[in-house]
Amino acid sequence: MKKDIGISTPLYPAPALVVAAYGTDGRPGGLMVAWGGVCNSEPPCISVAVAKSRHTLEGILEKKAFTVNIPSEAQAAEADFFGLASGRDTDKFSAAGLTPKKGDIADAPLIEEFPVSMECEVVQFLDLGSHILFVGKVVKTWAREECLDEKGYPDPEKVRPLVFAPRTGKYFGLGDLVGKAFGEGKKFLPNKS
Amino acid sequence: MKKDIGISTPLYPAPALVVAAYGTDGRPGGLMVAWGGVCNSEPPCISVAVAKSRHTLEGILEKKAFTVNIPSEAQAAEADFFGLASGRDTDKFSAAGLTPKKGDIADAPLIEEFPVSMECEVVQFLDLGSHILFVGKVVKTWAREECLDEKGYPDPEKVRPLVFAPRTGKYFGLGDLVGKAFGEGKKFLPNKS
Repeated sequence: MKKDIGISTPLYPAPALVVAAYGTDGRPGGLMVAWGGVCNSEPPCISVAVAKSRHTLEGILEKKAFTVNIPSEAQAAEADFFGLASGRDTDKFSAAGLTPKKGDIADAPLIEEFPVSMECEVVQFLDLGSHILFVGKVVKTWAREECLDEKGYPDPEKVRPLVFAPRTGKYFGLGDLVGKAFGEGKKFLPNKS
Repeated sequence: MKKDIGISTPLYPAPALVVAAYGTDGRPGGLMVAWGGVCNSEPPCISVAVAKSRHTLEGILEKKAFTVNIPSEAQAAEADFFGLASGRDTDKFSAAGLTPKKGDIADAPLIEEFPVSMECEVVQFLDLGSHILFVGKVVKTWAREECLDEKGYPDPEKVRPLVFAPRTGKYFGLGDLVGKAFGEGKKFLPNKS
């Protein structure tokens, strides 16, 4: 039976992204964002929700730019650190041993060691209450060579992204392949013969 | 080495959500959405990006409501079917053997068989080009009893959500637990002793 469990958001899976930006003082900073993802294909855009209390917010608003960085399973501790420390009193990059590299186009730092990074320029934002939802246009995408497939596209099984279930506080790895999109569902199509 | 791979959005993981709404003719319909997630905590909101070409779009705009339904790994075929068929010529619920149940509050159908469903009322939307990004306020959340943990919250290891890597067209299952949020990263905190 399906049960009314009140108003909550057990939306699984979420990514564990590190959104990075330069602060108003020019120093690189960032935060962990579970509430983010692609939101448009033409032009390619990513949305990220940033709590109003976060130090990185001011930097994003000032520079109108951020990067979205995907940690691998092996970088769970580094990613998690971006979620629990504050840039007000900590240089998170230095403390976690990560290298900030200035974006080629966007005025924001990308994380050199993480497998995938996307440079984004803010094109829209919405004030939703506790969070600001930023929409960034992707202006350049970076990936570590060892994570690419034979076509030069990041292979999820080499990226090995963290799979997050926010309210439960659990990070998982990527599981086994269970199917192909535009494939599994064909069995429900009417028989055209 | 990190390589410039042009402009693309290899953002992993994405969820595989079925967003459902009543059509302008009152019939239940829906589509697969990989580009969706929570976007605000107070009030709890979810954003979903819907391509302008999709039949379900008109229904969401008219009713100002939708549901977000999370399929389990075992329902990959049903979920995938919502991504490959069109509601213009197919009753997807009936073809996939799923039961539409009217939301208690939102004027949209939820999928009875999927482990988690959230009723949403549209509070904002942005036209981003190819897609409309809807922000829906969560007005009620449903979960199947067998998916709840001892506190009554959906347990990701019982929900067993699909983990999607869009452009690669691959659905994965949930992998092993690799860490705890606000835990793993503590090792990078300065020693306070």
